[in-house]
Amino acid sequence: MYALNETHDLTLTSWVDSANQPGCDFPIQNLPFASVRRAGSDEIFRGAVAIGDQAIDLAAVRDAQVFGGDVALLVALAAEPKLNDFMAEGPEAWSELRLALSRALRTGAAEQGALAQCLIPLAELEYDLAMTIGDYTDFYTSIHHATAVGSLFRPDNPLLPNYKWVPIGYHGRASSIGVSGQAFHRPSGQLKAPDAAEPSFGPCKRLDYELEVGIVIGRGNALGEPIGIEAAEQHVFGLCLLNDWSARDIQAWEYQPLGPFLSKSFASTLSPWIVTLEALAPYRAAFTRPAEDPQPLPYLSAPGNSEAGAVDMQLECLIQTPAMAEPVRLSQSNFSDSYWTIAQMVTHHTVNGCNLQAGDLFGSGTQSGPEHEQAGSMLELSRGGKSPITLPGGEQRTFLEDGDTIIMRAVCDKPGAPRIGFGEVRSTVLPAR
Amino acid sequence: MYALNETHDLTLTSWVDSANQPGCDFPIQNLPFASVRRAGSDEIFRGAVAIGDQAIDLAAVRDAQVFGGDVALLVALAAEPKLNDFMAEGPEAWSELRLALSRALRTGAAEQGALAQCLIPLAELEYDLAMTIGDYTDFYTSIHHATAVGSLFRPDNPLLPNYKWVPIGYHGRASSIGVSGQAFHRPSGQLKAPDAAEPSFGPCKRLDYELEVGIVIGRGNALGEPIGIEAAEQHVFGLCLLNDWSARDIQAWEYQPLGPFLSKSFASTLSPWIVTLEALAPYRAAFTRPAEDPQPLPYLSAPGNSEAGAVDMQLECLIQTPAMAEPVRLSQSNFSDSYWTIAQMVTHHTVNGCNLQAGDLFGSGTQSGPEHEQAGSMLELSRGGKSPITLPGGEQRTFLEDGDTIIMRAVCDKPGAPRIGFGEVRSTVLPAR
Repeated sequence: MYALNETHDLTLTSWVDSANQPGCDFPIQNLPFASVRRAGSDEIFRGAVAIGDQAIDLAAVRDAQVFGGDVALLVALAAEPKLNDFMAEGPEAWSELRLALSRALRTGAAEQGALAQCLIPLAELEYDLAMTIGDYTDFYTSIHHATAVGSLFRPDNPLLPNYKWVPIGYHGRASSIGVSGQAFHRPSGQLKAPDAAEPSFGPCKRLDYELEVGIVIGRGNALGEPIGIEAAEQHVFGLCLLNDWSARDIQAWEYQPLGPFLSKSFASTLSPWIVTLEALAPYRAAFTRPAEDPQPLPYLSAPGNSEAGAVDMQLECLIQTPAMAEPVRLSQSNFSDSYWTIAQMVTHHTVNGCNLQAGDLFGSGTQSGPEHEQAGSMLELSRGGKSPITLPGGEQRTFLEDGDTIIMRAVCDKPGAPRIGFGEVRSTVLPAR
Repeated sequence: MYALNETHDLTLTSWVDSANQPGCDFPIQNLPFASVRRAGSDEIFRGAVAIGDQAIDLAAVRDAQVFGGDVALLVALAAEPKLNDFMAEGPEAWSELRLALSRALRTGAAEQGALAQCLIPLAELEYDLAMTIGDYTDFYTSIHHATAVGSLFRPDNPLLPNYKWVPIGYHGRASSIGVSGQAFHRPSGQLKAPDAAEPSFGPCKRLDYELEVGIVIGRGNALGEPIGIEAAEQHVFGLCLLNDWSARDIQAWEYQPLGPFLSKSFASTLSPWIVTLEALAPYRAAFTRPAEDPQPLPYLSAPGNSEAGAVDMQLECLIQTPAMAEPVRLSQSNFSDSYWTIAQMVTHHTVNGCNLQAGDLFGSGTQSGPEHEQAGSMLELSRGGKSPITLPGGEQRTFLEDGDTIIMRAVCDKPGAPRIGFGEVRSTVLPAR
């Protein structure tokens, strides 16, 4: 767990004026990472850090030799097209670069002149995935989602007996993960209506989104060497937003007995900016279980995890149909309602000796809150397609239609702490081919 | 599908005498690929092709400029530490290099002098994975395995209704895949005996192997562009052997509703030599379904797939316990008993637009034959642990014990065609940590 330090100081201001504005996602206390280039150019992508409405081009910082010593070496790693090598350096390195950037961006910093030459407006950027994702694991940490979806797929048996003991997860497809802006064709596949004698082939009719938190692994572990829960967060670089697109009709027919496959592998979309776990230190919250529930097994328990294992991260999902001038909100939820913590996911994943690698991605699973209107998927909001949602303007949706855009946003915000925003992940459904 | 050509000619002999011996896995008609270096050295791994009891070091072939023109470029790609770029070149390129090597290795070839300088005895080699595996997908193509395992996990409902329609598969863990010689610690995890009120944590007690064929993807496809069944095999570089280690007790507790996870992610082991699909052309066999079964949907059907979609590949699994001087056979089966073909796996995997990438790995799923003694896992052989297997010397096994080594071999062999061997995959269970 990260301690609060001078980089979290609420009174810090930056010489980048836009970073000091109320409601800014990227104040000087945030400093998230992405891989960027100027939109429409054929420049090489390189690492960058957001500040206000600008990005610090780390390749330019490297070339201008703004920093010396160890920090210069870290800048060079983080300036690569993919940040895997920087992520692999571990928390001391991440903290060292964060502190150096924080000091250099403060009002009155001596580095202002050199660093100002390295800024590019966010409005001029396009993004790549910040890391090469070797393996992608999707968890299932919202008990509210698991119960709601379980009741649709298995009315007699919604929450399976293992749910309160095992941080349930499955391996997902890494190749089809894209960055915000991804547009994808509606998938086709095998579908079988409950009353049909045989399956048929055709475009998915029950296309859905899933509102998830993406967890980016930094330092990995060797095969055969589990990560204990007290060290688990030292292996996590940061968090972002993940839309884990799902074809519900394909899923219902294919998923037994080996789990989701083609219903999830046609696209998944990440937000470009990875917020470090250190930036989120002011928003750590207690992790508790209802007294009547089983408490986690010892290997998933630690004082730090109980005291501050959760993250108070407000999540929001919006839709913009082709008929809408502006997106409208579909739901809101909070990552702190998760039934399992980030540390528990890391420890459980490696308890069998499985090796994580820098740049691996975990999905938190759909983050639905305890109330129906906090559902993180259309499947839940429309009660399995039985209760259409009426949008402003009178349009209705049970599942997504071609041309629909889904936008997800997140923010950590509370009195007495700096606002830490995540930007957004936005992606659009194209017609089936 | 590959046509027979001069490289398959049964009468070809090589100036590498060992390649002409009866029972040789690697005659001149085979020419499989691996990534090798001298055992115990710190040399850089590089691509190699097996011939008899020797490997052609492709980096040495490149440096000696044995070939010119396009072939020299292909040698350079295949000489890299990982063969992904060569695999991505596609079937015309793979055939071109195969033909050039076949001609240069024939008795009396002008290249003998130069190429002989590039040989290293197989006995002096160690191996790396031949490719970086971006994504690993494990299928479930043996209906005999699915029925037998289903009856153990779900006695009332062994073969689910989708099995005869959908080539069932799930995403596996790529990071923990190793090459023959891999030794791994017995995994620990959550276990729950059927009669226990709560799960406990500890070492797996029901450790098992799975006898599988590994399918290596060569040329990939773009996201959103499915691969039709008639073109599917053009995307497959070759086949190898895969031991998909499984912790059956972890699996039974964790697998619902999202499928296998930690029960499979602690280790999977590949044979080092990848046999190209072209080398297997003499062993292609008709793909048929029992008349009473549903026939594959149109997107999974094509004349070529019916005529020659199967591969007549004999599979064998052996065990060597610490008490044994020599391994003994546990079972034999044949890949041609698979319920789905390679082409059907490729097409189904991409029908939703999922993108495959060069070096991706498919597992065939455990290849159990129709008879009980043809079972490809200990779970099946011991009938869920209820019928111990007695080994020569009197030892018994229901599942694997520490120190046990599992060896898998495969060969294509029939009168009138060259013997095409796969070498072996060998791996050992170490005690839990």
